[in-house]
Amino acid sequence: MYFASDNSSGVPAEVLEALSRANRGFSMPYGADDLMEGVRTSLREIFEAPEASVYLVATGTAANALALACYCPPWAAVYCHRTAHVEEDECNAPEFYTGGAKLVPVDGPDGRMEPERLEAALDAAAPGGVHNTQKGMLTITNTTEAGTVYSPGEVARLAGIARGHGLPVHMDGARFANALVSAGCTPAEMTWKAGVDVLSFGGTKNGLMGVEAVILFDPRKAWEFELRRKRGGHLFSKHRYLSAQMAAYLADDLWLDLAGRANAAAARLSQGIAALEGGELRHPTQANMVFAAFPRAAHLRAREAGAAYYLWPFGQSLDGPAETPLSARLVCSWATTREDIDRFLGLLRG
Amino acid sequence: MYFASDNSSGVPAEVLEALSRANRGFSMPYGADDLMEGVRTSLREIFEAPEASVYLVATGTAANALALACYCPPWAAVYCHRTAHVEEDECNAPEFYTGGAKLVPVDGPDGRMEPERLEAALDAAAPGGVHNTQKGMLTITNTTEAGTVYSPGEVARLAGIARGHGLPVHMDGARFANALVSAGCTPAEMTWKAGVDVLSFGGTKNGLMGVEAVILFDPRKAWEFELRRKRGGHLFSKHRYLSAQMAAYLADDLWLDLAGRANAAAARLSQGIAALEGGELRHPTQANMVFAAFPRAAHLRAREAGAAYYLWPFGQSLDGPAETPLSARLVCSWATTREDIDRFLGLLRG
Amino acid sequence: MYFASDNSSGVPAEVLEALSRANRGFSMPYGADDLMEGVRTSLREIFEAPEASVYLVATGTAANALALACYCPPWAAVYCHRTAHVEEDECNAPEFYTGGAKLVPVDGPDGRMEPERLEAALDAAAPGGVHNTQKGMLTITNTTEAGTVYSPGEVARLAGIARGHGLPVHMDGARFANALVSAGCTPAEMTWKAGVDVLSFGGTKNGLMGVEAVILFDPRKAWEFELRRKRGGHLFSKHRYLSAQMAAYLADDLWLDLAGRANAAAARLSQGIAALEGGELRHPTQANMVFAAFPRAAHLRAREAGAAYYLWPFGQSLDGPAETPLSARLVCSWATTREDIDRFLGLLRG
Amino acid sequence: MYFASDNSSGVPAEVLEALSRANRGFSMPYGADDLMEGVRTSLREIFEAPEASVYLVATGTAANALALACYCPPWAAVYCHRTAHVEEDECNAPEFYTGGAKLVPVDGPDGRMEPERLEAALDAAAPGGVHNTQKGMLTITNTTEAGTVYSPGEVARLAGIARGHGLPVHMDGARFANALVSAGCTPAEMTWKAGVDVLSFGGTKNGLMGVEAVILFDPRKAWEFELRRKRGGHLFSKHRYLSAQMAAYLADDLWLDLAGRANAAAARLSQGIAALEGGELRHPTQANMVFAAFPRAAHLRAREAGAAYYLWPFGQSLDGPAETPLSARLVCSWATTREDIDRFLGLLRG
Repeated sequence: MYFASDNSSGVPAEVLEALSRANRGFSMPYGADDLMEGVRTSLREIFEAPEASVYLVATGTAANALALACYCPPWAAVYCHRTAHVEEDECNAPEFYTGGAKLVPVDGPDGRMEPERLEAALDAAAPGGVHNTQKGMLTITNTTEAGTVYSPGEVARLAGIARGHGLPVHMDGARFANALVSAGCTPAEMTWKAGVDVLSFGGTKNGLMGVEAVILFDPRKAWEFELRRKRGGHLFSKHRYLSAQMAAYLADDLWLDLAGRANAAAARLSQGIAALEGGELRHPTQANMVFAAFPRAAHLRAREAGAAYYLWPFGQSLDGPAETPLSARLVCSWATTREDIDRFLGLLRG
Repeated sequence: MYFASDNSSGVPAEVLEALSRANRGFSMPYGADDLMEGVRTSLREIFEAPEASVYLVATGTAANALALACYCPPWAAVYCHRTAHVEEDECNAPEFYTGGAKLVPVDGPDGRMEPERLEAALDAAAPGGVHNTQKGMLTITNTTEAGTVYSPGEVARLAGIARGHGLPVHMDGARFANALVSAGCTPAEMTWKAGVDVLSFGGTKNGLMGVEAVILFDPRKAWEFELRRKRGGHLFSKHRYLSAQMAAYLADDLWLDLAGRANAAAARLSQGIAALEGGELRHPTQANMVFAAFPRAAHLRAREAGAAYYLWPFGQSLDGPAETPLSARLVCSWATTREDIDRFLGLLRG
Repeated sequence: MYFASDNSSGVPAEVLEALSRANRGFSMPYGADDLMEGVRTSLREIFEAPEASVYLVATGTAANALALACYCPPWAAVYCHRTAHVEEDECNAPEFYTGGAKLVPVDGPDGRMEPERLEAALDAAAPGGVHNTQKGMLTITNTTEAGTVYSPGEVARLAGIARGHGLPVHMDGARFANALVSAGCTPAEMTWKAGVDVLSFGGTKNGLMGVEAVILFDPRKAWEFELRRKRGGHLFSKHRYLSAQMAAYLADDLWLDLAGRANAAAARLSQGIAALEGGELRHPTQANMVFAAFPRAAHLRAREAGAAYYLWPFGQSLDGPAETPLSARLVCSWATTREDIDRFLGLLRG
Repeated sequence: MYFASDNSSGVPAEVLEALSRANRGFSMPYGADDLMEGVRTSLREIFEAPEASVYLVATGTAANALALACYCPPWAAVYCHRTAHVEEDECNAPEFYTGGAKLVPVDGPDGRMEPERLEAALDAAAPGGVHNTQKGMLTITNTTEAGTVYSPGEVARLAGIARGHGLPVHMDGARFANALVSAGCTPAEMTWKAGVDVLSFGGTKNGLMGVEAVILFDPRKAWEFELRRKRGGHLFSKHRYLSAQMAAYLADDLWLDLAGRANAAAARLSQGIAALEGGELRHPTQANMVFAAFPRAAHLRAREAGAAYYLWPFGQSLDGPAETPLSARLVCSWATTREDIDRFLGLLRG
């Protein structure tokens, strides 16, 4: 009953096997390995983007920060949702990699930026000339940090506003596969066809050990990205071990299969909680995360039995009346089992 | 009738004369001039801070950014009012000098941070460990960007909250003299006695050509400040010309006299507008800036006659019904004359 | 016959098996995994440093740049050998992570800094005050980039000079195991007992997929290191896969065994080349790299048969008289076989 | 007898008068003052560069660092002479403003880069791909730090080498006027006609209080320069006081007149020392600085009588045999008098 984070699961057997296979003999370092050639080809096909540049790094923070740094100058602003990972969970990595850009939060319910607020933020940034932070770029998180999913149309609306101000668009897709499976669209529809210039294509949360792709749909930034990656210490000498994982992830739609499992688990969990007496969803469950409230007593029973998850937001007390609802974040992964979910729901029910 | 900004005025005769006197002969460069010795002594006396380190730079942005960089590490947050100069008017200079710190806006009416909101922002920053922006420091602007003034007690309350979280405190005193004259307290009471560690002590807006002092009440940061100043290109070789201006500013309380004149001008202007039909103050007038609304027709008359000032906020249209009130920012300086104010008020009255 | 780099080899079976074992179940992320606890304990024991702080990152550039950034302020200099990896092969990563420190090359034959030259560089840096780059720290590469090894006494001499100027000392140990096996001393003797404050303890070149430890012998920098690691995007969520590799590396002295194999291979290769007609070593072979010249014709025979290695320095032409000696760098790893070496030597002999 | 530095002199009467005149009334801030319009026009005419962008800052370090940052990315190298001000006297300001570029010293006698060595440094930088510092730009100091002057042909040769590698060229002209008077060419011949893209046009050392122009011959970098200047805290609100000084400097060729006086003083001083028994020039005297050796006893006599200058290099001892020659740097300025020179030479003669 481990719902603390999708980054606490392991990797599927295919990934371990791919590492074993990749381990044979000598291999060209730094991304010149044969496996990377295949990864590049696969991602270009999957995204219907034959010109795209594709790179691998090992952490989502690196993917995001490097992508932002390629598009946002130090004197400009990155517009993001207030709860975005780049704003809340990266210890100023975007500021570091951009050389001091400013992240400007844009609000909206359920982890989604409201187009009107983005428009307002951009209009507010307009008049000041050299004294003010310049408008830099937009970053959209999909799956959002609230477990919701932007549809391609919603992405296109936000990206269109940014582009109307001349700004490029990044998508933080640490949970891109979960969003895609949820939205039921193609990768191209979710990204470049909707106006996205650069994508952090997550693998780690969805079954890899620590591999993320960065896909630059416009390859003119490719060389700059390579220099920034190296200068950030994110270029792997034994790159084949990243390539092998990503190749296994893409083969036979494993990535979509894993995300489908995680999303299905979350749906089951979400429905179970919603059906509880005193159970209530805090955000719609659209991908692999459930945000829900249920009575304190239910929390205590679950925790006593070893369930792991975060109260969300932090700071709610486990001491107090038994019926008071406390909110939690419950994250499913490809490895979450039906048994665990049902056992957990049973505990909640008491 | 020039109310656009206090940085559009000239300097009083004493300053020009001081430059002439300082021009004689050769002088040690880089702050080793004799005049700087006097400035240091004077500011230590004025602030009752015999241990303080005192430095001069030429712009307020430099003073602020260098001061913040000495106290806030790159992975931390600077808490400031949403309208603070460091947040709105320095084109990411604080982010540049700190190496990528994050500015976190804290709201409150009339340009003043609300203590409860500061407390809430700091509490929210508490739990996250290494993933989150760390708590860095507090910066308070006094005179605020809304023309209001924090009393020493209000400064102490905010600084006390910051210090309770282990954070140092900066005061942006670009209009420090105006605040001091308004509050009627001593420089020490407004700063270190209230918990301020480092002060940007403005001279430029109050009658100098481009000189600001940075006063470090705790001298342990002095050498780091010197290195940061040099590395930022803010150490003057012919430093005597900064020293001479600051010496003239401090002599015979000229700085307080100039600020008193500016505040008195603003009070007269404020009272005049408040007495107008359709006139209304947007913020209390406590220093040298007036934020007020008055009918569009009055704006048109004033502008036609050559009055210079900003509509505030930007973006209000001069086209439309004559009676509609439009808001403006009107800044007085030491050089604003009673004649100009009365003429301006006459125009508003029609 | 792959002698291009030690980063082109794979990993031993123990490492793959450790990954498989580590893959079971859920695990705490971000270094809170149980395996990391064991790694920490092991490295503290190996280095006889019970207080040391131990962290894992995935690349040598990250390990070096983060270690330097913890000890060298942006206005200071890092003294390094002219051929050091930090100077020549990291695309300004040290400058990036330190926020703009300057790398000052110090020469010496065979990749080793000459103590007299280090002394001279430090003395030259002394007099300038605030205008000049400040003295920051020393970094020593062991095994050097010329394949030579500093003895503990030589490390202590250089570190002693640095410490005499108040400077901390870093060791870039990307090939630390090779140096240690060569020198026949203890890890403690090679590092903190000789005056080293922080060590990049390499795993990648010696048989891991991409894992380096950073060992801070003085734990006061630990929290800063953690923040810098996160901010650099180098903190792994699924950290257990780094821990597992490092644990396997340390178990049963595997790391020393692997390095011993690589060094023995290089010794055999070196002796073989030295015995050739027209063969000549460019640097003493003390670890796993051979720098040697041999006739152009021998190069052509080896390359035609598929041997992979770099001419060193770059830019020598393969066209020209058959007897002319050309220099090469030949790197052995734990995976280099005696058969490959003998076949290669046979080709050189013609 | 003040020969310590040209930055220890005052300013001529014309500059003080210009400040007085500029002080009247209100003025648009931040470079929108009328005087700046005139400065822009004058410098474009003087440089025969009607498209050039022209900006003012207050220190030479700011001018250099901002200019370099506009042209050199953080992962690249700035090639400069080993004794260049950017390398030796700016406390890593270029590294700060560029975000971590590396300064690569290129040697040559008398403060002048040797073309062959520049070529060699650039060729050495060629082969490495993403791992190595990239080639960024060239900066040439004219007047050099050894008091010598590059002719337009020498500038063109160095700039041509850089441009052949695709690199832009900066000239540090902190003593540009002195170089120009010495070379007897036009400003255009010394700069853009010889391949210079951006010039730091010094005023401070040649008679202003603290004003330098940056001239971008290619205006496409203009907006970036403005943002960098603001973000660095180098945009003056009361800009008119910079403009007024520069306007006075350019009017009636005052700048050339001042430099001519300084050069003539240095020539007289240089000839006097060369004629001494035991006197010897260390570098040719081509502008306003004399590098020369003369007997220790002569130093002692001069110093006892109050002469101020630096032994050069630092670290020579005034204790020892009377006849031993010690080297010194003696800098003349527009304010150096014939009387002082003759008195100084008299003291040396004993």
